[in-house]
Amino acid sequence: MFNYLLTIEYEGTNFVGWQSQKNGKSIQDSIEKALKKVIGTKIRITGAGRTDKGVHAYSQVANFKLKKKIDNKKIFLDSVNFFLKKKLISILDIKKQKDNFHARFSAKLRTYEYLIVNRQGTLSIYKNKAWHVKKKIDLNLMKKGAKLFEGNHDFSTFRAASCSAKSPFKKIYPIKISKMSEIIKIRISSKSFLQNQVRSMVGCLKYLSTDKWSLNDFKKAFKSKKRINCAPPAPACGLYLSKIKY
Amino acid sequence: MFNYLLTIEYEGTNFVGWQSQKNGKSIQDSIEKALKKVIGTKIRITGAGRTDKGVHAYSQVANFKLKKKIDNKKIFLDSVNFFLKKKLISILDIKKQKDNFHARFSAKLRTYEYLIVNRQGTLSIYKNKAWHVKKKIDLNLMKKGAKLFEGNHDFSTFRAASCSAKSPFKKIYPIKISKMSEIIKIRISSKSFLQNQVRSMVGCLKYLSTDKWSLNDFKKAFKSKKRINCAPPAPACGLYLSKIKY
Repeated sequence: MFNYLLTIEYEGTNFVGWQSQKNGKSIQDSIEKALKKVIGTKIRITGAGRTDKGVHAYSQVANFKLKKKIDNKKIFLDSVNFFLKKKLISILDIKKQKDNFHARFSAKLRTYEYLIVNRQGTLSIYKNKAWHVKKKIDLNLMKKGAKLFEGNHDFSTFRAASCSAKSPFKKIYPIKISKMSEIIKIRISSKSFLQNQVRSMVGCLKYLSTDKWSLNDFKKAFKSKKRINCAPPAPACGLYLSKIKY
Repeated sequence: MFNYLLTIEYEGTNFVGWQSQKNGKSIQDSIEKALKKVIGTKIRITGAGRTDKGVHAYSQVANFKLKKKIDNKKIFLDSVNFFLKKKLISILDIKKQKDNFHARFSAKLRTYEYLIVNRQGTLSIYKNKAWHVKKKIDLNLMKKGAKLFEGNHDFSTFRAASCSAKSPFKKIYPIKISKMSEIIKIRISSKSFLQNQVRSMVGCLKYLSTDKWSLNDFKKAFKSKKRINCAPPAPACGLYLSKIKY
C-alpha cells in the first residue's frame, strides 16, 4: 500500500465544513468523489483538522492509502482538479509518505489566520472572506490581549460545549498581528486546538480592542475557565487554516 | 451646489464594467440607483476611470453634484451601502470637494494592481480574483521587462483598437513587482492609461517571464508600436484599480 498526502486549498463558504456528513456538501465528500472518478475505486481520506462550515483553507492536509502507485503527479493533480474546479476546492500537491504518516496525528504544528476588515463600509472584495468589524479596533490593545494567550494555559473559556478533547490545556506560540490599511491579520499557532478555540479567542480580542471589555474584563473571562464568559466567537468566514507542519 | 467625492470598492466579476450601459448591470448604474433611493432625486456620477467587465476596484473615485448638503456622513454611507450590499459594491467614503473638482480630469496619478497566482493547482480562494498562470514565472525576467516600460514611451503596442486617446505616449512610474508564496503582485502607476494598456502590458510580461518570448522579442513588440505584435492581454479578473491621487 502507498500512503499519499494531499495539500488542499478551499473556499469554505458553500460547504457544511470539512467533515463528511449525511446532509449537505462537505469538502471531504467532494474530494473523495473526485478521487473515485480519477482512481476508479472508493477512497477514504483523513484530514488534519475538521474545519467548520464557512471556514477556508490555504493549506489543509489529508492522507489516503492506495494499492497502486501514482506515476504522473502532474496529470493526477490536473485530473482531480478538473472534477473539483466548480466546487472551489483545489488540490495543490500530492506526495508519497511513510506508511505510518497520519494527517491528523502526525501534525506537529497547526497555524490559523484570521482576517478582519476594520472600516465602516461593507465588504465587496472580501465578502465571505473576512470579518467586517465597523467599530474602530485598537491594535495595541489587541496585541496586549493576544500576548496573554501565549504559552501553556487552560483554554476552557474558549472551548465549544461539544468539544471532545481530553484536556483544556494548549500551548499557544507567539501570536502575530499585522495591519495593512484596513485589513488586520491574526496568526495563531499550536500543536492542536480545542473546538472553536481560534474563533472564540478572536471574539474576545475584538471585545477588548473595541472597548467593550477592559483588559481586566478580558483577563477575568480567560481566568474564569467558563464558556459562558466568552465573547461571541468570531464568524467562520474570517478563518483560514493556513499551514500544518509535520 | 455641493460637489461630493465617493470612494468605491467593488468586486467586478458580475458587472459589465464601470460605465452605464443599456444592456447589463454596470457599477455606475447600480450606484446611481442606490443614491436615488437615499437622496430622492436622480443623480449622475462621474467616475475617475472606466474599468472593464470583470475588473475590480479597491478604491475607484467618482463625484456628483447635489443641491442639498449631506449632514451625517455615517448615516449616508450606511444607507447607500444597504442598497448596494448584495451587489458587491461598497461606498467607503464621501467627502465634500471644491466646485471644480472632477473625478476624471482632476486625477494626478492612477495606480493599478495586477494579481497572478503562479502554480499548477486551480484557484479556489482567488477564483475570479487573480490570473491563474500554470507555467513557472521567472520573476527576474518579469522585472527586467517591467523596467523597460518605465518612463515616457509610445505605448501603441498595448492599446486597444477602440482606444480614443489622442496620444499613445504615457509616462509610467517605477513598477513594483512582489511575490508572496505563489502570489505575484504587479503595481503600475501613471497619470492616465490607454484602453487595455495595463492588461496588455501584463500579457507581454507573462510571455517574457514564461519563456514564450526572449527579452529581444519583448523589446521588438514594444518598439514595433503595432497592436498585432502584442501578447494576448491578461484577463480582467486579475486587475484592480487600486488608488487615485488628486
